Amino acid sequence: MALEAAARDLPRVPWTRRHLLGLEELTRDELLAILDTAERFVDVSERRRKKRSNLAGKVVVNLFFEPSTRTRTSFSLAARRLGADTLDFSSSGSSTSKGETFIDTAKNIEAMAVDLMVVRHASSGAPHLLAQHMQCGIINAGDGAHEHPTQGLLDIFTIRQRKGRLEGLTVALVGDILHSRVARSNIHGLLKLGAKVIVCGPSTLVPPTITELGVETSYNLDAILPRCDVINMLRIQFERQRSGLFPSVAEYARLFAMDGERLKKAKPDLLLLAPGPINRGVEITPEVADGPHSAILQQVANGLAVRMAVLHLLCGQPGE
Amino acid sequence: MALEAAARDLPRVPWTRRHLLGLEELTRDELLAILDTAERFVDVSERRRKKRSNLAGKVVVNLFFEPSTRTRTSFSLAARRLGADTLDFSSSGSSTSKGETFIDTAKNIEAMAVDLMVVRHASSGAPHLLAQHMQCGIINAGDGAHEHPTQGLLDIFTIRQRKGRLEGLTVALVGDILHSRVARSNIHGLLKLGAKVIVCGPSTLVPPTITELGVETSYNLDAILPRCDVINMLRIQFERQRSGLFPSVAEYARLFAMDGERLKKAKPDLLLLAPGPINRGVEITPEVADGPHSAILQQVANGLAVRMAVLHLLCGQPGE
Amino acid sequence: MALEAAARDLPRVPWTRRHLLGLEELTRDELLAILDTAERFVDVSERRRKKRSNLAGKVVVNLFFEPSTRTRTSFSLAARRLGADTLDFSSSGSSTSKGETFIDTAKNIEAMAVDLMVVRHASSGAPHLLAQHMQCGIINAGDGAHEHPTQGLLDIFTIRQRKGRLEGLTVALVGDILHSRVARSNIHGLLKLGAKVIVCGPSTLVPPTITELGVETSYNLDAILPRCDVINMLRIQFERQRSGLFPSVAEYARLFAMDGERLKKAKPDLLLLAPGPINRGVEITPEVADGPHSAILQQVANGLAVRMAVLHLLCGQPGE
Repeated sequence: MALEAAARDLPRVPWTRRHLLGLEELTRDELLAILDTAERFVDVSERRRKKRSNLAGKVVVNLFFEPSTRTRTSFSLAARRLGADTLDFSSSGSSTSKGETFIDTAKNIEAMAVDLMVVRHASSGAPHLLAQHMQCGIINAGDGAHEHPTQGLLDIFTIRQRKGRLEGLTVALVGDILHSRVARSNIHGLLKLGAKVIVCGPSTLVPPTITELGVETSYNLDAILPRCDVINMLRIQFERQRSGLFPSVAEYARLFAMDGERLKKAKPDLLLLAPGPINRGVEITPEVADGPHSAILQQVANGLAVRMAVLHLLCGQPGE
Repeated sequence: MALEAAARDLPRVPWTRRHLLGLEELTRDELLAILDTAERFVDVSERRRKKRSNLAGKVVVNLFFEPSTRTRTSFSLAARRLGADTLDFSSSGSSTSKGETFIDTAKNIEAMAVDLMVVRHASSGAPHLLAQHMQCGIINAGDGAHEHPTQGLLDIFTIRQRKGRLEGLTVALVGDILHSRVARSNIHGLLKLGAKVIVCGPSTLVPPTITELGVETSYNLDAILPRCDVINMLRIQFERQRSGLFPSVAEYARLFAMDGERLKKAKPDLLLLAPGPINRGVEITPEVADGPHSAILQQVANGLAVRMAVLHLLCGQPGE
Repeated sequence: MALEAAARDLPRVPWTRRHLLGLEELTRDELLAILDTAERFVDVSERRRKKRSNLAGKVVVNLFFEPSTRTRTSFSLAARRLGADTLDFSSSGSSTSKGETFIDTAKNIEAMAVDLMVVRHASSGAPHLLAQHMQCGIINAGDGAHEHPTQGLLDIFTIRQRKGRLEGLTVALVGDILHSRVARSNIHGLLKLGAKVIVCGPSTLVPPTITELGVETSYNLDAILPRCDVINMLRIQFERQRSGLFPSVAEYARLFAMDGERLKKAKPDLLLLAPGPINRGVEITPEVADGPHSAILQQVANGLAVRMAVLHLLCGQPGE
C-alpha cells in the first residue's frame, strides 16, 4: 500500500539516458535523480511489499563474463520486483566458447526481444562497445578496473541515508585503488555530489595519477583517520599478493584493517562501508564488521533499491 | 477452481514456527498440520490448477552447498506455484570461494529482502546455525547425516495416502542407515505418528545406538519382511563401498535388494518407497520399481504438495 | 493491445499432436498451422507487448543433455511470454551422474507436475523414447544428427517472411550436411512446402544417400549459386577437422564461405540464413553477415515467435 502510493508520486525526473555505463558521465542532477528514486524503493525493513508492474512484459538479461553472485542476484531480484522477466547468461557454456564474437553473442540475445542487458566483463569499455551496437539498454555491472556504477551508487546512497547529506563529508576509500572499479565509481559520484575523497592504501596499490580526478592520496590510514566521516574498505584480492603488489596479508591488516583499536582514533560517528564479500580479519575484524559503525548489510539492501531505481529510470513505463 | 475453493477452507492450524529444521523437534500436531495442509495441495493428477497468490511478493532462495536436482527443483516449483519468486544459489561460483564465511554469505543474501531460505549443507546443524543468526525463515533441505525433513514428510505423506493411516503400521527403512538423513527424519516422524519402525541393513551401515531413538534393528531383510506394511529402500551410495562399509554391490543386492522373488515373501499389499534417484538393479529391480507396490513417482508428486504446505505454513499470508 | 486482439482471432487450427518430435512426421497442413500461428506472435519490432496468459499455471522444463545457450533461452523466453513457469535441467550436476537412467530422470521431473519438456540429447531418437514413456508433451530441441524441428521451422518461417512464399523457391543448405540435424529438419519442412532443396558441401560432409529424401546434391557452391533463392549456411564445427572430414578451415572458406566476391554471382535478391553461432570469416564474412542479404538476427527473433507458436499449439488453453 505504502509502495503503491510511493509509485504514484515518483518524481518525473528529467531522465533521458538509455544506458548506465558509468558515474563519470552523469550530471549531478542525474545522480540525484537515481538516489531520490531509490529512496522510494527502500521498503525492505517493512517487508510488506507488493510486486510492481512498471517493467511488466520487459525482459532483463544478465550477461556476465566474470563470475558474480551478489550483483547478478541483486539485479535479478530488482528486475522481478518491478515485474520484469529475467534471464542469466554466463560466458561458460555459452556460444562464446564456440568462437562467436562478444558483439554477436549480445546481438543474438538482444534479438530475442530483450529490453535491458546488465553486462559484466573483464575488459574496460565492453559495455560501452555494446551500447554503440545495440538497440536495448545497457547497464554496466563492472567493466575491468574501470567502473561499477550501481555499486558506487549504493555506497553513496548509504552514506546519504546514514549521514543525511553528502556535501562537505570526507570519505576515504581504503585498499586496492589501482584495480578497483568500485573506487572509480565512488570517486566520480562523490566528487560531483560535493564530498571530499581521500584514496588510501599501500603505495603499490594507489596510482599517483589518480589525483588528477580531484582526490587526495594517502599511504597512511592512521594519519587520515581522524578527519574521515566515512571509510569505504575495498576488498583485497589475495591473488594480487602473488604478483608482489603487497608484502603479506598480515602486514596489510596491520596497516589498513579496521579493528577496534584503530576505530578509537576515528570520529565517534564514523560510518564504515565495505562492498562485500569481506575477508573477516583482513580488511575488517568481525566485531567491527558487525558493530554499530558498519553499514555492510544495509548496503546490500540498498543495492536492491538502487538497482530498482536504475531499471525504472532506464526502462520503466511511467504510466503504469 | 477446486484449488481456489480448497484455499479458502485451509485449516487455521496453530502454526507458530518460523523455521523447519527437522522432524525431531516437531510435535505430533505440527506433523499432522503439515500433512493435512499438503493434502489440499495435491492436485497433480487433475492438471487443472491455477497459480495461487499467498506467497505473492515473497522471495524464496535455494542456498545449496551440496549438489541437488530434484529437491531444489521441487522447492522452486512449490514456491512458484504459490506465487513466490525463487532464486538459486550454489556454492560453486559464489562468494564463498572468495573467502566469505557461511553466515556472511547467507546474511548478504537475506539482506536482499529474502523471506525464506532453503538450505542444504554437508555439515549437520548448518541450517540451525543460520536460524540463530537470521531474520528470515530457514528450511532444512538436508544437513549432513542429520535430517532431511521434507523428504521424511513426503515419505510419511505417501504412506498415509496409500494406507489410509500411520498408526500401527510397521515400516522398515532398508539400506545405509548410518549416513542417511532421510532415515533419521523418517524415524522421528513415523514414531511420533504411531508407526513401528525397523531399520535394516548391513551391520556396518546400521549403528547399534540407533535403538535409542525407539526403533528395532535388523541385519536380515528376509527375516523382517513378512511383518512389514511399508519398506522404504534408501539409496546406496557406491562411494561408501570404497571405504569398506559393504563388500560388493552384488552382495548387497543379494541380501537387501527388492526383487520379484523377495516380494513373494512380503504382505500382498506391501508398499514400497524409494527416495530416488534409484539404482535400478541395486536396491530395486526394474519390474518392482515400476510395479504396483511401488509409489516412487507418487512420492515425487507428493513432494511438491508437502513443500507447498511447508512454505505456506512458514510464510503464507492467510488473508490473501 | 494489438497482441491481445491477435490472441482472440488465433485460427482454430486442427492441431491434435501432443509432441513435436520432428518435421518429417508433420503434414503440410500442420507445418502451415505452426507458421501461421507464429505470425501472430511476431511483435518483436513493436516492443509494446503484454504478457499473455494462455499457458498460465503450466510448467515448461528444459531438459538439456547437450550444452545450449540460445535454443534453451529462446524456449524459456517463449514459455514465459505465454505465462508459463520454466525450469532448466542440464545433465551436469543432475541425478544422471548418480547412476539414474535417462527415462527415470525424465519421469521424476515429470512427476513434479510438468506439462511440457523441451529435450536436447546427443542420441538420435531420445525425445521419441521419452514421448513413448511419458504423459507430458515432448518437444525435440535437437537429437543427435537427426532433427531440430524448431530451428527448421524458424528458418522456413524467415524464408516465407522475406520471400512471401515457399513454393517454387530453390534453397541450398551449405556446409556439414552429414552431421546436421538442422539440415534434416529444413529438408523435411521445405520439401513438404513446395521448395526445391540442394545440399552442398565437401564430399566428405554430404552423404550420397541423402538424395533419397528428394534433394539434389552438389559439391560446388559456385556452380549452384546462380540458381539459388536462399542459402542457409550451416555452422562448421571445427572439431570435425581433426577427424579429417575437411582439409583446413582456409580451404573450406575458399570453397564454401559466403563473401562479397561470391555474392556477386548470386541472384540480386538472394536471402542468406545462418543458424548461429556463426564463425565470422569462416562460413560467412562480416560484411556479408551484417549486410542486406542476411537475415541472421531476424531468424533469432522469429525463433521466439515460432517457439511460442509450438508451445501454444501443444499446450495452450484456447479459451483463455
